[in-house]
Amino acid sequence: MTVRNSLFSTITNIFERHGAVTIDTPVFEMRDILSGKYGEDSKLIYDLADQGGEACSLRYDLTVPFARYLAMQGKKDAQQMKRYQVAKVYRRDQPIMTKGRLREFFQCDFDIAGVYDPMIPDAEVLKILCDALDAVHIDFKIKLNHRQILDAIFQVSGVSPENIRSISSAVDKLDKISWSEVKKEMMVEKGLDESTADKIGVYVEGLKGKDTNSLLDYLQKDQAFMANPSAVKGVNDVKLLLEFLDIFQVKDRVHLDLSLARGLDYYTGIIYEAVQTESQGVGSIAAGGRYDDLVGMFSGTNKKGQPKTIPCVGVSIGVERVFSILMARQNMEKIKSNATQVYIVSVGDGLLQERMALVNELWKAGIKASFMQKNKPKLEKQWAACEKDQIPFAVIVGKDELDQSQVRIKDMRIKDATQGGGTTVHRKDMIETLKSKIAML
Amino acid sequence: MTVRNSLFSTITNIFERHGAVTIDTPVFEMRDILSGKYGEDSKLIYDLADQGGEACSLRYDLTVPFARYLAMQGKKDAQQMKRYQVAKVYRRDQPIMTKGRLREFFQCDFDIAGVYDPMIPDAEVLKILCDALDAVHIDFKIKLNHRQILDAIFQVSGVSPENIRSISSAVDKLDKISWSEVKKEMMVEKGLDESTADKIGVYVEGLKGKDTNSLLDYLQKDQAFMANPSAVKGVNDVKLLLEFLDIFQVKDRVHLDLSLARGLDYYTGIIYEAVQTESQGVGSIAAGGRYDDLVGMFSGTNKKGQPKTIPCVGVSIGVERVFSILMARQNMEKIKSNATQVYIVSVGDGLLQERMALVNELWKAGIKASFMQKNKPKLEKQWAACEKDQIPFAVIVGKDELDQSQVRIKDMRIKDATQGGGTTVHRKDMIETLKSKIAML
Repeated sequence: MTVRNSLFSTITNIFERHGAVTIDTPVFEMRDILSGKYGEDSKLIYDLADQGGEACSLRYDLTVPFARYLAMQGKKDAQQMKRYQVAKVYRRDQPIMTKGRLREFFQCDFDIAGVYDPMIPDAEVLKILCDALDAVHIDFKIKLNHRQILDAIFQVSGVSPENIRSISSAVDKLDKISWSEVKKEMMVEKGLDESTADKIGVYVEGLKGKDTNSLLDYLQKDQAFMANPSAVKGVNDVKLLLEFLDIFQVKDRVHLDLSLARGLDYYTGIIYEAVQTESQGVGSIAAGGRYDDLVGMFSGTNKKGQPKTIPCVGVSIGVERVFSILMARQNMEKIKSNATQVYIVSVGDGLLQERMALVNELWKAGIKASFMQKNKPKLEKQWAACEKDQIPFAVIVGKDELDQSQVRIKDMRIKDATQGGGTTVHRKDMIETLKSKIAML
Repeated sequence: MTVRNSLFSTITNIFERHGAVTIDTPVFEMRDILSGKYGEDSKLIYDLADQGGEACSLRYDLTVPFARYLAMQGKKDAQQMKRYQVAKVYRRDQPIMTKGRLREFFQCDFDIAGVYDPMIPDAEVLKILCDALDAVHIDFKIKLNHRQILDAIFQVSGVSPENIRSISSAVDKLDKISWSEVKKEMMVEKGLDESTADKIGVYVEGLKGKDTNSLLDYLQKDQAFMANPSAVKGVNDVKLLLEFLDIFQVKDRVHLDLSLARGLDYYTGIIYEAVQTESQGVGSIAAGGRYDDLVGMFSGTNKKGQPKTIPCVGVSIGVERVFSILMARQNMEKIKSNATQVYIVSVGDGLLQERMALVNELWKAGIKASFMQKNKPKLEKQWAACEKDQIPFAVIVGKDELDQSQVRIKDMRIKDATQGGGTTVHRKDMIETLKSKIAML
């Protein structure tokens, strides 16, 4: 938890640098809110038992609850909002500890809701993602695509509208299985004819390895593709986004990748995924995109019968995966899990009441202090407790010191004999002496 | 969440001052772990639906999961531990918003596990409770009792062993209903004869209003009572505890109250409840006690067939209730929910790219900065955004400033005309100037 809390506070500091506020939503939502939002993964949702009352399920992510929250607010205040949330989500999945995949795990989301001019919030979300991953020293790159570019690819290749989402999920598997397997799935399971599959292959497989500028050039010269209105919208969005990312000095982290599809149903614009480039196995560590219609599913309609939606763009950082990378790097011995600064040590006759009075004085001064909760603790046990928790200072008290209103202060980080039994200070100077030593830690 | 997070960090700072570490436990536990621990309130536990796999329930408090955790650790490390946890618990109860009673709510627990000399950890837990409630400026007093004093009262009054827990729950209602009603419940519902009920009444009702010292004197002079071994143990514990609380300078906050019973089954020693004395309605804001046998219920037995228990003492702070008291005091207008320090304002022609470059420079310097995500925002809208979020400084940029590599910095807290359009600084001095202004906030 010490490592985890430091990870959370590093990331949330970045969010707050960008003016974000945090909200809290319940761990369970009405079951209807969650259904139909997660494609094939809906089977992983945990339900609460029927004990009377509403049918509820545990939240599967933080995005759908945020959209539900925005729809419920209804007030003008919620129309524009930068929010972050670090909270647990629940999936009835097969746990894989080494990949940081659990049934209950933290997610860390940042989203910008509201109507702004094109691609400005999208650029800020990607900037924040880069800053957050840099702050925790992860090597990564971001794969970028656009739902409307993908849709245009499927349309110009000849996929019928009702098959687009299902063909899209097949393409989404290209980072795990080969093109020939994906092609087979599209043809055998999803009934696509081979010429259509091959046309899709030209874009999602044939252009692999091209850099972002070459890819954009290629697409813009493809007259059949650019005749599709979705294609024009998608390409223009990506070009404007890259312009802004250049100003934010993160353009080189982002790579257009036409095979990135993202399984979730609710994305409508750009989509992206951060993958770590440091080691194999962990893979995706953050993902997100623009979802302009999700809030509208919960918010009812306006006088014209249109949903009162609020456009949103956001990212979920898979903090458990980041955490498992950080833990693999950590020297566990060196993690100091408590913050204690001073340990009271008695020499000789126990002196319980005197130790309690001393520790009380330190607490009152705001110093993090502790003592052995025994009437007559052995000296070596007290030193051992001090060592174990890596407590930097000891206040030593014995009968002689008490008689002269003194204590001895010892710097526990000095392992040689230079300081002997510590420095003797007058009891009334103890707090000031300790405070100045602590200030230099 | 801004008020809530500041409440949490105030309280957890106190816990850390005492050397506590935090742990995290899952939101659901195996159903068996929770059953039989909460007396009559077990009906309030939320169950997960049976979707295959283990039968699970949502946690009802943080104490039972902590005991389960201690039992599972098994290692010597976990034998002595100061832990705190701020997390949500779940109860299928009728919500009462004004009292801060919800179905999902945060609890804030501090516990000391392990074998120490008598009453030392008990005194530290009460000291921490006092310091935590003082730190959030709540007026309170602590009612104290001891399970063994209560048991002795019931025994010397003639209650049979198997009825003690049920009679104890009846007595627990004395802070809500009158003695005559409690007496009626004991006689009618629980079949107690009147002379036994009256004997109990002498202690739990007849001694009301006596201060702690008089009560202890009374009990110690009561020969029939002191002939009971539980009574002797209980009275001696309380006397030693008060001696330690005196050293910790919180003795005057604690009042022995023989009618305090606490409904939960797992307490074995001292029990206590903090009630706020500032206003009516909220009542109990923290409660706890010693529970020496709970870990043993999960830990199996040793070679002699005895449970391998770990004695514990702790407290749960009802942070939702504290939160509702704090919110009632707050001037909502004055809560600054985001931390933004600088807002970039453009005068004239939009200057989107220039504003983005400026905000990027501020972010890089770690300054919390924001700008209006519009191509050509109106000046008054930018000032309004600045006002709404109470952002202290504005960096103003227009065509003239750009041409001369300058910006203007305006202190938004100064409402009169003294600073005109702000102070002009060279672009290269912007960060340093802002940093020194922010340092003086």
